[in-house]
Order: sequence, then C-alpha cells, then structure tokens
Amino acid sequence: MKKVIKNGTIVTASDTYEADILIEGEKIVAIGSNLPEAGAELIDAKGTYVFPGGIDPHTHLEMPFGGTVSKDDFETGTIAAAFGGTTTVIDFCLTNKGEPLKNPIAVWHNKSKDKAVIDYSFHLMISEITDDVLEQLPAVIEEEGITSFKVFMAYKNVFQADDETLFRTLVTAKELGALVMVHAENGDVIDYLIKKALDEGNTDPIYHALTRPPEVEGEATGRAAQLTGLADSQLYVVHVSCSQAVEKIAEARSKGVDVWGETCPQYLALDQSYLEKPNFEGAKYVWSPPLREKAHQADLWNALKSGSLQTLGSDQCSFDFKGQKDLGKGDFTKIPNGGPMIEDRLTILFSEGVKKGRISLNQFVDISSTRIAKLFGLFPQKGTIAVGTDADIVLFDPNVERVISADTHHMAVDYNAFEGMSVTGETVSVLSRGEFVIREKQFVGKLGRGKYLKRAKYGEVISNKEEISI
Amino acid sequence: MKKVIKNGTIVTASDTYEADILIEGEKIVAIGSNLPEAGAELIDAKGTYVFPGGIDPHTHLEMPFGGTVSKDDFETGTIAAAFGGTTTVIDFCLTNKGEPLKNPIAVWHNKSKDKAVIDYSFHLMISEITDDVLEQLPAVIEEEGITSFKVFMAYKNVFQADDETLFRTLVTAKELGALVMVHAENGDVIDYLIKKALDEGNTDPIYHALTRPPEVEGEATGRAAQLTGLADSQLYVVHVSCSQAVEKIAEARSKGVDVWGETCPQYLALDQSYLEKPNFEGAKYVWSPPLREKAHQADLWNALKSGSLQTLGSDQCSFDFKGQKDLGKGDFTKIPNGGPMIEDRLTILFSEGVKKGRISLNQFVDISSTRIAKLFGLFPQKGTIAVGTDADIVLFDPNVERVISADTHHMAVDYNAFEGMSVTGETVSVLSRGEFVIREKQFVGKLGRGKYLKRAKYGEVISNKEEISI
Amino acid sequence: MKKVIKNGTIVTASDTYEADILIEGEKIVAIGSNLPEAGAELIDAKGTYVFPGGIDPHTHLEMPFGGTVSKDDFETGTIAAAFGGTTTVIDFCLTNKGEPLKNPIAVWHNKSKDKAVIDYSFHLMISEITDDVLEQLPAVIEEEGITSFKVFMAYKNVFQADDETLFRTLVTAKELGALVMVHAENGDVIDYLIKKALDEGNTDPIYHALTRPPEVEGEATGRAAQLTGLADSQLYVVHVSCSQAVEKIAEARSKGVDVWGETCPQYLALDQSYLEKPNFEGAKYVWSPPLREKAHQADLWNALKSGSLQTLGSDQCSFDFKGQKDLGKGDFTKIPNGGPMIEDRLTILFSEGVKKGRISLNQFVDISSTRIAKLFGLFPQKGTIAVGTDADIVLFDPNVERVISADTHHMAVDYNAFEGMSVTGETVSVLSRGEFVIREKQFVGKLGRGKYLKRAKYGEVISNKEEISI
Amino acid sequence: MKKVIKNGTIVTASDTYEADILIEGEKIVAIGSNLPEAGAELIDAKGTYVFPGGIDPHTHLEMPFGGTVSKDDFETGTIAAAFGGTTTVIDFCLTNKGEPLKNPIAVWHNKSKDKAVIDYSFHLMISEITDDVLEQLPAVIEEEGITSFKVFMAYKNVFQADDETLFRTLVTAKELGALVMVHAENGDVIDYLIKKALDEGNTDPIYHALTRPPEVEGEATGRAAQLTGLADSQLYVVHVSCSQAVEKIAEARSKGVDVWGETCPQYLALDQSYLEKPNFEGAKYVWSPPLREKAHQADLWNALKSGSLQTLGSDQCSFDFKGQKDLGKGDFTKIPNGGPMIEDRLTILFSEGVKKGRISLNQFVDISSTRIAKLFGLFPQKGTIAVGTDADIVLFDPNVERVISADTHHMAVDYNAFEGMSVTGETVSVLSRGEFVIREKQFVGKLGRGKYLKRAKYGEVISNKEEISI
Repeated sequence: MKKVIKNGTIVTASDTYEADILIEGEKIVAIGSNLPEAGAELIDAKGTYVFPGGIDPHTHLEMPFGGTVSKDDFETGTIAAAFGGTTTVIDFCLTNKGEPLKNPIAVWHNKSKDKAVIDYSFHLMISEITDDVLEQLPAVIEEEGITSFKVFMAYKNVFQADDETLFRTLVTAKELGALVMVHAENGDVIDYLIKKALDEGNTDPIYHALTRPPEVEGEATGRAAQLTGLADSQLYVVHVSCSQAVEKIAEARSKGVDVWGETCPQYLALDQSYLEKPNFEGAKYVWSPPLREKAHQADLWNALKSGSLQTLGSDQCSFDFKGQKDLGKGDFTKIPNGGPMIEDRLTILFSEGVKKGRISLNQFVDISSTRIAKLFGLFPQKGTIAVGTDADIVLFDPNVERVISADTHHMAVDYNAFEGMSVTGETVSVLSRGEFVIREKQFVGKLGRGKYLKRAKYGEVISNKEEISI
Repeated sequence: MKKVIKNGTIVTASDTYEADILIEGEKIVAIGSNLPEAGAELIDAKGTYVFPGGIDPHTHLEMPFGGTVSKDDFETGTIAAAFGGTTTVIDFCLTNKGEPLKNPIAVWHNKSKDKAVIDYSFHLMISEITDDVLEQLPAVIEEEGITSFKVFMAYKNVFQADDETLFRTLVTAKELGALVMVHAENGDVIDYLIKKALDEGNTDPIYHALTRPPEVEGEATGRAAQLTGLADSQLYVVHVSCSQAVEKIAEARSKGVDVWGETCPQYLALDQSYLEKPNFEGAKYVWSPPLREKAHQADLWNALKSGSLQTLGSDQCSFDFKGQKDLGKGDFTKIPNGGPMIEDRLTILFSEGVKKGRISLNQFVDISSTRIAKLFGLFPQKGTIAVGTDADIVLFDPNVERVISADTHHMAVDYNAFEGMSVTGETVSVLSRGEFVIREKQFVGKLGRGKYLKRAKYGEVISNKEEISI
Repeated sequence: MKKVIKNGTIVTASDTYEADILIEGEKIVAIGSNLPEAGAELIDAKGTYVFPGGIDPHTHLEMPFGGTVSKDDFETGTIAAAFGGTTTVIDFCLTNKGEPLKNPIAVWHNKSKDKAVIDYSFHLMISEITDDVLEQLPAVIEEEGITSFKVFMAYKNVFQADDETLFRTLVTAKELGALVMVHAENGDVIDYLIKKALDEGNTDPIYHALTRPPEVEGEATGRAAQLTGLADSQLYVVHVSCSQAVEKIAEARSKGVDVWGETCPQYLALDQSYLEKPNFEGAKYVWSPPLREKAHQADLWNALKSGSLQTLGSDQCSFDFKGQKDLGKGDFTKIPNGGPMIEDRLTILFSEGVKKGRISLNQFVDISSTRIAKLFGLFPQKGTIAVGTDADIVLFDPNVERVISADTHHMAVDYNAFEGMSVTGETVSVLSRGEFVIREKQFVGKLGRGKYLKRAKYGEVISNKEEISI
Repeated sequence: MKKVIKNGTIVTASDTYEADILIEGEKIVAIGSNLPEAGAELIDAKGTYVFPGGIDPHTHLEMPFGGTVSKDDFETGTIAAAFGGTTTVIDFCLTNKGEPLKNPIAVWHNKSKDKAVIDYSFHLMISEITDDVLEQLPAVIEEEGITSFKVFMAYKNVFQADDETLFRTLVTAKELGALVMVHAENGDVIDYLIKKALDEGNTDPIYHALTRPPEVEGEATGRAAQLTGLADSQLYVVHVSCSQAVEKIAEARSKGVDVWGETCPQYLALDQSYLEKPNFEGAKYVWSPPLREKAHQADLWNALKSGSLQTLGSDQCSFDFKGQKDLGKGDFTKIPNGGPMIEDRLTILFSEGVKKGRISLNQFVDISSTRIAKLFGLFPQKGTIAVGTDADIVLFDPNVERVISADTHHMAVDYNAFEGMSVTGETVSVLSRGEFVIREKQFVGKLGRGKYLKRAKYGEVISNKEEISI
C-alpha cells in the first residue's frame, strides 16, 4: 500500500521545502517534486507543515505516585499524544530496590502492549547501583534496548539516590553506552524546607513552590554536571525550569562536558502565580520542579534558541483535580506531582515559540523530535523525514487559531493546565509507520498497534563512526 | 538532462541516510530508494558521502594588500575551492572612503565574472558610515543582494573603524536586514606592540604573533558583542582563533545576544610554533589573528561541538612564499597577511573533526555549509540536499588516506600550510547546479560558469516567518 | 603645643578601641589609656568616634567645564570638605595637548595655595602620550610627587583618549611607578546615542542617562581592565556606577589583575528617577556616568563589602542650578556634568552604609581614607590613626539625626543633591595636622593653611618591601 | 609589672609604624614615641617587626583518627605554635552521635587545661542536627562561648553529614549567631574512587590525591556556598586547596553571600608531586584535601591578595612517619590524614608571601591573625596591637635566613613537611598576655598557663553595631 503526501511544506531539523512524500508500507521511500500518484492514496497537505512526528522523551503513564496512579495510561495517553502530533513516547519504568530489573520492565510491557496507539520505549529508573544491579544492566541494554537510566536527586527517602549512586551510574553508563538522566533538585534541602513549612502551618499549594526554590535546582544541576565531567560521562537533565539550572548546563557545556537539557511546556508558558489560584486550584499546577517566577521564561526560551537547552519533554503525569489532586487539601505535600502535558507539548512550542519568533521552525523540529531521537538511540528510524525512515508524519496547520480546553482535549483528566489559552496551530493528521492514527482531527488508530522500540546505545548514532557502513 | 546519483550516503545538517538523488537541470527533483534510472545519467556514489556543496563565507581573491595582490584569483581560487568540495564562495569587496559603493562592487564583478567556476557572492567592507554611505546601503542590499557588512577593529590607520562606526553599522544593519561581520582585534594595542617590537629590533615572523596576543582578540570580540547587545543587532565574528574570544561569544549568546562565530582550518590544526620555523618559513604562517598556542585548539573544537562557534571559513588570502611573503624579510609587518586555505577547508574539518570524534558528521555539514547558507541568505537554494534546491553536490570519499602538499594542490601559490600532513578523506566529484565541475578528481568545469548570487536579508530565512508561504 | 583627645572610640581600618590620643605639634605621638593631660589642651571626645580624617581622591575644584567653571573652589570646597570630615583632597589637574605639563600644574598650584584649608595633592590628566610627554613625566613624579595619571575613555573629541594612549599610559605608569585612573565609558557609543537623541528632539535631562546606558560603562571598564592585564600594570577605575562595571572589576581581580574601583555617594543613594524631576530639576542630578536604576545600588554596596570596590570618592564638581545647570535647558548635553558631593561623602557612607549594616565600621575607615592613602602614596602620613602619623583626626557623632539641606551645607552652590534626606551621624570637630579646622561644628581654620602633598610612587607603600627600613 | 617594647616596627592589619609599646599586666596600655621606660622592663625590638600574635583557627591536637591519635597534644602543640609566633589556637572538639555535647567538650577541656602554654578555644564538630542537639546548642554558645560549628561533607560513613544536616546547621547558626565551618569535599564520589582504586590494586600514597581530585572539592564548596545563600547564613570554608574551590567562593561573595575561605601553608608551598616520593615518603604529605598540581598555588596566592580567601590555618594534625603514617603501607586509605604545620604557618606565609611580593605586610597580619579574631569572636581582645588588647605580641626578625628541619623544630613528630626548605624570617620572642613564652628563641613559658577563651557570637564584633557602646 502506497501513500503520497502532496502540496505540503516539509520541515526537518535543518530544511524547509515543498515536495511530495511517497510512502510504501511503513517507510518513506521517496521525496520529490510531482511524484507519480499512480496506485497510491493521495493525501493533500495543502496549507500544512509536514513535520516528522514528535517524540516525547518524558512521560509517566499509569504511574503509581503517592498512593494514587497517574490518570492517563498507555491508551488515553498515547491517543492524546497523537492528537498533539507526537508519534513516539519514552516512558519511565520505575524499579524497586532489591527487585530484579526484569520484573518492573515486564510490568511496563504489560501496561503498554495492548493499549499504545503509537510507538514507545522505556527509560529505566535507577534506585540503587549494587553489584547485583550492575550485572543486570548489560542485559537491559542488549535485550531490551533500554539505553537511558534515570537518577533522582530529590524525593528524599523515596526515590532519591546519593551522590555515590549518581556517580557510579555515570561511570557505568559511559562504559555501557547509556545516557544518564537526572531529576536535579537537592532533596535534602527540600525535605528541610517542607518540614519547616508544615511545622509553621503553611499547607497551601503555593508552598510547594516556596519549598523548592530555584537555587536547589541550580545547585543539583551544577553538581550533576560536575560529576559528569569528572566521570567523563554523558548527562541529560530532565525538566529544567529555571535560569540557575540553565546557567549550570551552559557552563558545563562550555567546558566540554557532554551535558544536555530538557525543558517542558509548563515552564515556558506558565508561572508560579498559578499556584496561588483560589479554591485549591493551585494544586493543578504542582510540578517538581515547580513553576517559577515569570522572569525565568525568557532565559529558558533563549537557552532553546542558543543551544544551552536542546529538547522539550512533557513530563506527562496527569491526575484529576477532583479525587486525586485534592488528596493534598490541607497538606501540599500530598498533592500528586504532575500534570497533563502530553497533548499540548508541540502546540505550546509552536505557538509560543515559532509564532512569536523565539525559535526557528527548524529548531522546533529539532527540539521536539530530531534531537531527542538522536540522544536516545532512535535516529534515523524516528525523528526526521528522510528516505528510509519510518513514516511517522504530522500534518500541522500553522495558521488556525484555537483555545485550549479540557472540554476538547483528549487526555483522561478533568482539567487542562492551559485552559482558555489562545494558541495558533493544530495537528490535522498523523501517520505512524505509514498508517493514519489521526485523520482530519479524528482518531482512527487501533489500540495496541504501537510497537515497543529497542534503542541504540548512546553515541552510536550521533558519533557517526559506525553510523552507516559504506 | 537528468542525472541520478546512486549508492551513496546522503548527509545533511540533520540527517544521514542511503538514497538516490534525481537531478533535472540545475535542481534536485527527487530523493528516493531505487529511483528509476531511465533517461538519466547514472552517477555511482558507492563508498562516498554525498554532501551539500561547501560554502566558503570568507575569501579574499585577487585582493590588494600591502602593496601586493593575493595570488589566487577567481579562476585558480574557485577551481581549488571546487577540488576541496566547495561550491559557493563569498568574497569581500573592499571599499575606499569617499568613493561611491557601486564602484568597488563593479570592480569585484569584473574580477569574478569571467573566471569563477562556481557560484559566488560578495560581502561589503564598511570603512566609514557617513550619511552619504547610509543613503547608498539600501541599494546595495536591494539591487546587489549584498546583505552583510564587514567592519575592522584592527589595522589602525588602514581599515580600522572606530567604535562609533561599528555601533552605527550595527544599528543600520538591524534596520536594513543585514549581518555585521567583524574582524575583532584591538588595533590600537597591536599598533603599540608592533612599534615597540620594531623599536627593539624584533623583526622575525614570530613577532607577528607576539604583537597580537589573544587578549587583544578577546577584548575586541567582547566589545563587539556588547555593542551588538546594546544595538539589539546581529553580529558574525570572523576568524575566531582563541579561547578568550570563544568565551566572549558564548557569554553574549547566553545573554540572548545574536552573535555568531566563525573559525578557520589554520586555527584548528596549526599553532604558534609554526611562526618560529627557520629560514623565514614562519612567514608562511602569518595570519591575523595569528596562530595560537596549541592549547587553544581544544577550546575551538569544543566550541564547534557545543555550538558557541557555528561556521568554518577559509579566510583564503594566498601569497607566494617567494616574491610575496618575503617582502617581510627584516620586518614582519611587511609580510602579507594570509594564506592558502580555500582548498583544504573541508578536508581539515573532516579529517581532524569528524574522524577524530570531535564533531558529528551532521555538524560537519552544518558548519561547512548549511549554517553559512542560513546566516548569509543563501538558504535553501544553497546549503543542503533537498528537493528543490540547487544541485550543488559533493561526493566525498571518507576513507582514503593521503598527504597534503603544494605539489598536488590546485591553488596558485608555491606552498601549502599543511604540507606533509596526513589526512583522511577526499573530494571525488563535485556538481554545481547539476553540472560536473570536478569528476573523479579531475577539473571538468568552465571558466566563468559560476553565477553571482544575490542574497536574502538576514533573518528572512532563519526566522521562518515568511520563509515559505502556504 | 600638645593636645590630648580623651573619652573617644578610636576607629581605624582594622581596629576599634577606647583610648586617649596625645598630639604634639602636627603629629600623633602616643595613644594610651589615661594618658597624662599635663600641659596639653584637653579635647573631650565623649560620645564620638575618632576617625582618621577622610581623604577625597576625586575632586574637581574651580574646574573649567563646558564654558563655565565649577562653583566650589579650593576655598569653599576645602571648607565644605572639612565640615564633612575630610582632611585631604586630591584634585585633577587638566592638561592641554601640546602644552608643557608644568604649565597646568602651575595653574593648579595657583588655584589652591592661598585658599586650601586642608592638605591637598594633584592627579594629572593625560590627554596624549607623545614622546615629548613621556620625557616630562619623570619630573612630574619626582619633583611634583604626582603619581597618578587619569585617562578618559569618554567625552569624544574633547578629553577622550584612544586605546593606544590608554595602553601606552598603562605601560609607562608601570615603569615609572604611577597608578592609572580611568573614566570608563565608551565615548564613541555615547556620541552616537547623543546625536540620535538630539536628532529625535529628545533634549530633557533624562536623556543624559538614556544616552549613557550601563553597558557602555561595563564595556569600557572591562576593556581597561583587560588592557591593564596585558600591560601587567595597575588601574584605578573612578566613579563606578553600575553592576556591569563591578562585575568586570571583580573578574579582572579574580585573574590577578591589579585593578581597583571607586564609587561615589550619588550612585549609592540616588537613582536614575531623579533625572526625571520636573521643572528641569533633573539637571541637578547629571553626572557622568549617570545615576542608574535603583537595583544597581545593592550590587555597589555588596562590592564595597566584599572587596570588589575599595574606595569612595566624591567626584565633587559643583554647579549652581540657576546660572550654570540651566545652560542645558533645551539641550541636555549642555548641562554641566557634576554635582556637590565633597561635604556629604562620609555622611552618606556612614548613615547608609554602617548604620544600615551594609559595611562594618572598620570598612568605613578603609573605604573613605586608609585604602585611598595607600593607593595614592600618602600612607602612613595620612589615612590612619597611629603614632607618627599626621594628626588629621575627625570626631564624629554617630547618633545625631539630621536632615541634609542646601540651607545648612557649606558648599557654594544653590542646591544639595540629598536635599531633605534624613541621615544619622555628623562631624563634630576636625583637626588637620594637629590644628582645629572645625571645632564643635564651627569652622575655625585659616585660608591657605593647607599644604600641598607630594606622593610616593605606587606600590612603594603597599608592597611593604621598602616601606620601613629596619 | 610593666614592660616597654622599644625600637621595633609595629605592624597591624592596616598600619606599619615605629613606636614603643607599654604593657601593664596582661594588656597593652599605651603606644607612643619615646614612652617613659621608668619602672618597666625594657624589651629591645630593634630589627624586628612587632606583630600581633598569630591565631591558628584550625588545629587537631591529640585527636583520635583512624585508630591512632595525632602526635602533638596541647603541650607540644602549643609550644611549637608559640615558637612559630602563634599565641592562640582554636581546636576542633569532636562529637559523637547520640552523646550529650557537654561530654566531648569536657574531654577537650581535660586534654588542654594542664598543658596549653598559650590561650585556646574550641570549635564544635556537628555530626547530626536532631531536636535534641538543637536544644543543647544555645548552652554551648552561651556557657562555653563556642560560636563556630563544623560540618563535614566528606569521610562517608564516618564524619560525613548529609545536605539536610548542613542546611539545618546553617539555618540554626544564623539564628544563634554562630559561624558554620565546612570541610568541602564530595565524600560520596571520593568513596567510589577509593573503592575503585583499591579494587584495581592502586594502594600507594599518590592515590590519596588521585581519588580526591580538585573537582570534588570545587563541587562541594559551591554546594555549601549555595546552601548558605539560600539559608541567608554565614560560612567559613576550611583548608581550601584548589582553584576550583576559590572560584566558587569568589562567585558566592560576588553575589553577596557571606562566605569566607581559609587556606593552609601546605597548599601554598607544596604540591601533588610530593605524594610520589619513594620509600613510602609520600605518606608524609597526605592531607585531605590533598596537595594539588603546582598551578593551583598561584590562584591561592592571588585569592589571598585580592580577598577571595581571607585566612590561613594550619590544619595541624601530626603523625609520626614511623609508627603512624606507616599504618597505611599497602593501603593509602589507612594513612592517617594530616601533618605538622602549627609551627611553620607564619613562616611560610611571610617567606613565600610577603618576601616574594605576593601579599603585603598588613595582609600578612590580617590573614594570620586579625581576620581570624574577627570571624571567630576573639576581637579585639586578640588579633591586633592596640591599646586595651591582650599583650599577645610577636617580635619577628624578617631578615634572617634559615632552613626548616625536623632536627630543629619543636613539634613532637619525626619529620617536617618543609624539610630542607630555605626561608626568610623567624620568630624571636613571643609574649602571651604580657608574659614571655618565647624569649630570644628559647621557650620560657609554663605548662597550663594558657587560658580557655569564650568567644563572642558571629557578627557581634564585625558588624560594629553593638561593638562598643558610646
């Protein structure tokens, strides 16, 4: 079965041009002017940008957290992702100390395999680095194709790893060809500030932000980057929210340390004042790291533009306002952390970024797809529009104006963090490996059609050395 | 007339993949797997990378300097460029105070039109910003498509502009949509140090370096960047040679200032010790800025990798050792500044950069071609391999090992700065707008076939706003 | 004739203690507990701090500027200084290109010798560094004891020196043992911005600030500091007004460059909004560099506390509001630059600094007196309270609250920049070389009693090497 | 009983002058020219500098460490200190988790009271901050006058505190008026590197340095400084050894954070190559942090000069080479950390610092005595020469040349880290509270004459606010 996409403007991380795309089966087989349409289904992309499908490097679908479970699972989550122009997600597989790593990986396969409508992969959370864990890691990489490990510097007494674990993970990752991801906040200081706030009777959502000031993120980010330099390893800092952290990443990169940074839509377009909304509505805006004062936004945008930050993740981890977020009434520490972001990730980047002149159209593609594919071993199968790649393609109308709302979104939760926000641009149709998942803004995919993706080791793609043998 | 390139690995600033390229006339019309060969000339690219033709943003062909004229002109210079995989050059048009700008532009057209074998364009040197000059600039941009102006902060009493001229140029460029280029060295301090050296009888070539220490480049680079920020304008720093200058560019970019930096092959692969070669051979290595201590090289490479520097220019300005360089015997200030670099630019970047793991293959393309096209208003006509673009294509053998030598190079000068250096990689064939210029390492082009390129305004391409209407 | 000061608290740059001071003639001869009073005049210092007399390193008395002359001369200026607790001033001697240096020095001696009521010395302004000037400088140092030279980076076409002059001055100063002082603003950029403002009809006083943004001061400060490092010389940046300049000084010092910074009371306690006062009153607040946004003040105070800035000068250069400042009505560039500061310098530092906990009491003395004496070759004759030093002593009431006003000040001008400001602390009595100049807040000195001070070379005092032979 | 010191040159942190000093009992009562000698013992200081006695802020006398006990106790240690010109030491009192704080304090009083020949005080090591500890701290401050608490970021599973303990200590110290001292090395990373080294069979002393690279000190220093800023508290970083740590302290200070830094003689004058001495002699040079590459020395000196570091401590913790250091044969982690430094601290600072022009004579006094007294609440009783202060006075011959050797030193250990080093300057005589302890290079003091010093709260002295009421 062939398809031809006509009349659109193809955009990649480096190029913008008008051409037709010929798809055979799951792959792009040709790009050209006036490609023959004979025997192919014609797709008219007139008026749209033709993007490579977005890759969301940071989701938590059906994840247990604080006595509840994130609302969107691999069904609703991947459907919403597709509506937003995302064709691949990489979810975090949580491990437990002492348990064989294969167990939680099996759990995650079970969560996803019958539900996902787009392709997906897993990162592995590292809670400890024992000799036993070390022995299991090569198999995780070779057999599961999981080539990225996440370490938490926050959530004391829960997920938090000590510096020795972080450092050993960095050293190990370098040896094995994996990328270390880090949640960089100083959990010890946060723990103290939280206790103090609660002792003083400060229980409102805003105290979530006030007990996690940007300095604790800056400190932890700098520490992780310095340890990476010392280990001669590679690091990816997730959900960078503030100027302090950007500065540390830029400083490390300027010294030749292999550090990368991801930010999220919420940090680009929302700010700390949202946590002060009345009637406990501030709880909707509880992320860790928290939303920051508005002044940080300009630094984040500039970092994306100048290259100190390179990717955008959603950190999707949604909870209903009623029934979940309200677990934290009277105690902000009980508010489940996270929010619904998987659907609006590209919209925010396009509308607030490209349309407002903060980043270029090619940077949009690089930040939301290509760079992520390269860092996480999915390139060139995913992350670009080129001959031979998976036909994960998004037709995006860059001119439509609309208003974001929970009334119209496709996530399973009862609110949208951008409720009422006017944006420009919308996904029209989405192909995943050559199949329509979204067609003219309607979901047309099948549950469970998404495939699990084994990923290449870090550097195998981007080092070019072995990239393509000739 | 059609051509099909088969069996090669296409490399762009973001992608690396195997596919065929179909060329009709001057343009690429399709890229695909197993494109039909019927009616087309078959070009077998087996074993090669298929790169977009290199763009050299910085050449001085047949340029008067210090009482002599640079040896390579638009004939030998563009032929050598083509041998090296470059398909476009942008040369500097020198102006004289008080003379209408159209005059030197006409001179430059005359130098080039019957000689150039590849396409070319001009930058305009700005020696003064009077009301009279201001009135002429719009025509230079609109009629000539010259959208980049160069200001010298060095060469006191010759080319050197004062800070008011630099600042006014920045303000004007912003208004008119041009990019300001700057030669950043503090000419005042250099002037003092030169006088002192000569007074003390220090006349050998090494004093060229010692009288232009890296601090004078760092200072001027920082000054230009700060003035750019204040003018809210855009800046391109040519021939960055040292750590100090890199640091200033990175600092400005981190603050959101729109500053870009170019380095050159000589700074990446040669060092100050070359200036101490006996028998006046040091004169062969006289550039401004001068070659630096070896430790600077790592910072330059890291800057290319991490994005603080973005492009590579040749600063081609060649002089024979005998008859030209030797004008400076007994007085290093009389040594013509510059050297033959146009041919080996891509080789050095590939062999020392990609092959040694310092940059990726996609970065190689971005640095040597794509980014330059975007900054100087040539994109997407030049600078990439995509449907609809000019078929400026290089087949590059990445595995051949060879030794650089004046015996085999194609520049008109009697020495090569990399004489005896072993490198990996060589240009095999080159197409310019669909025509072979180099075929299997033989020149097959015609004099004067190169076309003058009018360039788009700064930001028109990279802002994407108006890039392609839909 | 002996005097004994009893019951006070002596404060030096390092110590604070209660003791008596015995003065014989011009000198302090003993400090002790319960010194015998026999034969000595008793001075009761109860309730006061006993400070070494302040040294003002930066005054412009009776200075021609823009077609007028600064109002306070060596009579009214030094009387007002004494009222404010200052016992030494160093005034700037302006030179003219081509004229022998001895001429303006003679002029300055004539201005001062019959008027000054406290001791004084001169800095020399350097407008050019010709071989002729170079030949005269040793005599200026040896015969006149003038060991500090000032270079202007601003006031284009008037005082502004080019970078070669600055650099050559730095080199020369190093050789001769002098300290280079610099007015650090980029005069070229200012010149452009002024022309533009006037072209656009923007003539109000606030445009004085808007045409001299802090970036031009930061840039010039960094440039001067970098040139100092390159010359391995020593630099004193006068009237630092903004965060950008502080940052550059701190950076240079951290690299081991011998750079010092002075700020002024106006930058610590006033801000840019004063320039917007109605009825042309903004003209009263025209200094170069201009007053800054309020946020800069905290950085200046922190710099004094942490040591990135070391001294406080008044930059005294007073003009009447009526008859002088109003020359600039309708054209802010015609407003004479400067203001009356000589009298309130110590009060502002004490009231806003010590009393508000921003600096310590010992730092107050160091900043206003000791460090200045050391840098400018007056130490230990001036600048401290110790046996053998000149009895330049101030009794200062740290608790009195009062309001600053032109009605009560002793400067010759018709306004006070701090009019209406409540401050804590006041000079009660002042001795200069053992003689009362101010006694119980009354002037009791004699015109012309002040002596001209020849100063030691830079480093002779603070290097300690030859300080005191043993 | 009176004493008069004649003919010397008095040096304080700000002044250098010739005068006599009159002592009555324990105090200085007068300083003057030609003070009457009647009834006083005459001390001829001809040819010497008269310094305030040195204060050593960092000693570990008779301290248990790694199964042994540091060799010098309060007898030999304070005698050696006195020979070196030190008249006050502040020793670290080690606590144990769970034990009441008064117990170890009592132990330390017992160690010292019958032995010390000069005055002394204690810092308190904080191993945990429980509610129980918090309740005891006010008494420690009020009753014992212990106003400085030390936290270790290194020595994992031994002394190492987590970040929450550090942060809580900072907050508590701010509330109580204490200064937090920190040993800043990342113990987690060190722990990993040590295990790895031992696993690989790398057991020689040099691996002590290689497993504690400067980056781990830089990281921890920056972390501590950032936490201090967040807590709005005060920090004193002990034994700063490297450029990376200096940079972090300077950065914090530039942002207004109240951070101070101490270095030690070993880091100024020795380097990492000493650890490679054959025959296990490298063990003599095992400190934590370790000795660094020689290039760090210049940065440390510049930091002392420019004010980024403020004090010099000895970190005295001596162990015999035979019988103690050799516990680490075959396993560098078993080498007791520390060395004999208490005696040569001032000599190294004077000979390498003042004599070589790296710091001024007044800075010498500030760094070795005055600033320490101010930071640790001993000023003005200790730390200067002024009327009313304790007569802790050192007569120092600045011109004698000598060679340091264990043959002639007075410490109890069998080697000297500076063995064979030629230095200039030697302590001739030392008074402690008016009594000779050293006279003409002979020890004349009595065991147990030293008094325990209760110290003022942090900031009470240096803020000046309440310093001396008037």
